[in-house]
Amino acid sequence: MGSKRPDRRGFLKGGAALAGGLTLGAVEPAFGQTQESGASGAFIKGDKEMIAYGERSRFVTSVRIPHGGRPSPDSFGLVFHVATPLQDSVGVITPSSLHYVATTRGSFIPDIDPAEHRLMIHGMVDRPLTFTMEDLKRLPSVTRLHFIECAGNRSTPRAKTVQESHGMTSCAEWTGVLLSVLLKEAGVKGGAPWIVAEGAEEVKGASTIPLAKAMDDCLVCYGMNGEAVRPQQGFPLRLMVPGFEGIFHTKYLRRIKVVDQYYMNYNEYGHLRQDPKDAALGYQVGPKSVITFPSGGQQLPGRGFYEVSGLAWSGGGAVRKVEVSTDAGRHWMDAEIGTAHRMAHTRFRLQWNWDGKETELLSRCTDELGQVQPTRAQAAKFWNKPLDPSFSVPGLDNLIQPWRIASDGSVHNGNA
Amino acid sequence: MGSKRPDRRGFLKGGAALAGGLTLGAVEPAFGQTQESGASGAFIKGDKEMIAYGERSRFVTSVRIPHGGRPSPDSFGLVFHVATPLQDSVGVITPSSLHYVATTRGSFIPDIDPAEHRLMIHGMVDRPLTFTMEDLKRLPSVTRLHFIECAGNRSTPRAKTVQESHGMTSCAEWTGVLLSVLLKEAGVKGGAPWIVAEGAEEVKGASTIPLAKAMDDCLVCYGMNGEAVRPQQGFPLRLMVPGFEGIFHTKYLRRIKVVDQYYMNYNEYGHLRQDPKDAALGYQVGPKSVITFPSGGQQLPGRGFYEVSGLAWSGGGAVRKVEVSTDAGRHWMDAEIGTAHRMAHTRFRLQWNWDGKETELLSRCTDELGQVQPTRAQAAKFWNKPLDPSFSVPGLDNLIQPWRIASDGSVHNGNA
Repeated sequence: MGSKRPDRRGFLKGGAALAGGLTLGAVEPAFGQTQESGASGAFIKGDKEMIAYGERSRFVTSVRIPHGGRPSPDSFGLVFHVATPLQDSVGVITPSSLHYVATTRGSFIPDIDPAEHRLMIHGMVDRPLTFTMEDLKRLPSVTRLHFIECAGNRSTPRAKTVQESHGMTSCAEWTGVLLSVLLKEAGVKGGAPWIVAEGAEEVKGASTIPLAKAMDDCLVCYGMNGEAVRPQQGFPLRLMVPGFEGIFHTKYLRRIKVVDQYYMNYNEYGHLRQDPKDAALGYQVGPKSVITFPSGGQQLPGRGFYEVSGLAWSGGGAVRKVEVSTDAGRHWMDAEIGTAHRMAHTRFRLQWNWDGKETELLSRCTDELGQVQPTRAQAAKFWNKPLDPSFSVPGLDNLIQPWRIASDGSVHNGNA
Repeated sequence: MGSKRPDRRGFLKGGAALAGGLTLGAVEPAFGQTQESGASGAFIKGDKEMIAYGERSRFVTSVRIPHGGRPSPDSFGLVFHVATPLQDSVGVITPSSLHYVATTRGSFIPDIDPAEHRLMIHGMVDRPLTFTMEDLKRLPSVTRLHFIECAGNRSTPRAKTVQESHGMTSCAEWTGVLLSVLLKEAGVKGGAPWIVAEGAEEVKGASTIPLAKAMDDCLVCYGMNGEAVRPQQGFPLRLMVPGFEGIFHTKYLRRIKVVDQYYMNYNEYGHLRQDPKDAALGYQVGPKSVITFPSGGQQLPGRGFYEVSGLAWSGGGAVRKVEVSTDAGRHWMDAEIGTAHRMAHTRFRLQWNWDGKETELLSRCTDELGQVQPTRAQAAKFWNKPLDPSFSVPGLDNLIQPWRIASDGSVHNGNA
């Protein structure tokens, strides 16, 4: 399995590849000088509300959908899991309105007045402290691009689209105060290896986190994508635990307690990792990647040139390399990646000339630690399980996602 | 005038500076274990629309306002200039809903069906081409952070807030195809030093741009902040001309013509730069910076620790350095800056302990070319004009913005 970079401008040579692949031709004469392009003279009037706060086009209908086929919220209003439409994603930022949301108990979002909100730092500290939102905004801040991913984000054979298979991850520009700043100010006592973060959600929202992680890169965030954190994301305050599974990113953050023991709470159902080192690594996501175009449910109009594009991320740091195979894993090519930030989605791109024959597209992420995303077959062998549709990885799933391109251009989940 | 970096953790020593500056104390006992933090038990119900597409908190009321004190749109629906609330900005991205908008003729936004939209490359080319939106999305793409700024973005004595003085600039993550890819595909003929970009706006939206700039870093964008370009920003297609004044960033882009002469059009009122080199440099913005906190109209609750924060940018490339003065220009300190992208807003931050006395805060940007942002006094001297409130820079204004902090903590425009 070799690895080579395709000629960046190959398709442009004499226009042949482009003209063969795309529906390019001479200028359409009907496209005259005076007519509006496709607008048929229609306009959107700039009313008072649109002056204050703009909206998207009525032709853009990309929306979140309930995750895992369950109604969201369910009839009790308890389950609220909605997935990001990654098939429509461009760049690395997820629009805040489309950021995935997961709460297991309570689809009712706390309606918090930020003027009344407080963050308490307490427990095994020299000086318990209470911060108002104004206090926090006066402190030294940082802005960082970070993804969040739900531990339930996995491809099942029944997932038809990338939204269904991988939509429980999103990426945003987060702004806030390093948790270490607050903890240093409070003064952590010796012999306190854990913190517990608590939010104002009914049940979910308390996590035991190793102090080492808290002092490293955790962020107490009031800003997201250039504005206040959205209510569905924890307004007015959300804890970011970069690279850890989503459940640790406590919303409506109101208390951080420094403690001397591991607290079992709602988050820890099913997996208990009381050893700090094991906890720190065991909740770390990835390395992971998925092709968003072409992906399940999309339709290629015909053979020719395409840009294969997708997202890669890792809880272990920055993405170092993404390889793409356009022949079901026989050959791998290095994709182009943009600036890779630590614990952030990274967009990858590969130029591809489709010959019109059935094939399978795969992507494989390697992170800065050298961790490599495994195939489903590799994982089945590792876990000594049969490789059939029933196989799934215990715990976090970062398996390579195959997309099968049928000869008619339709795209399907290769796990199905 | 020395330049030094303050002790990053100075305020944290023993908590003294913090405790002196912020209203930090013991934990409030009223803040009990069972009560929702500031929520008084209220919830937002997750209705069907909020599942599909989330919204911001009802407590977040930051909005755009008409620029320059003119009604927007005016009674003829022609002027539509609305400014970004930079005083509320965090990080570097402007939320798309709050991105500034400027059109001089026509507040009515073209209501374009992207399935019908076409981009034509014509004029002095070997192969005139017409692209559908689907064609464009199959081509090699790039994602880049870029600001746009209106040439009218300037501080006047009557500007009370940073939204009024500097709100006609915003920054977003733009995704699209390099214009050079399209031009190479079409094959530019010799002796064609210009392009004219034309959009579907009624009057505005045609610009003569040097071919060298077009081949360098111009982008034909369909994506903005992770979704489709918004209608107010040119949906479905906007030309980015990084670092050039906003009027060149043609919205509703439908034609690019390669031409052998400079075309005078609506854009060029008041300033004609027919020499390509002069045109390329004369429309370039900055270097520029402005403090967004504390800024005009804001109120400091009292002496003590604050993070001074703002935005810097330049049409000449990346921001290399931002200096801040907290004593009306007598001393300057290097602010912290994040990753500086080319022709993008860069957030700067400086830790400041306010002694409660009246003073003036200033920021000064130096870009990668070594260009330095001038003071108003320096500019008046350069232009040989009296330094009074009537003085303004001819053309693009990148003067240092002073914010006066009164002893009662109120913040005022130092130009007033």
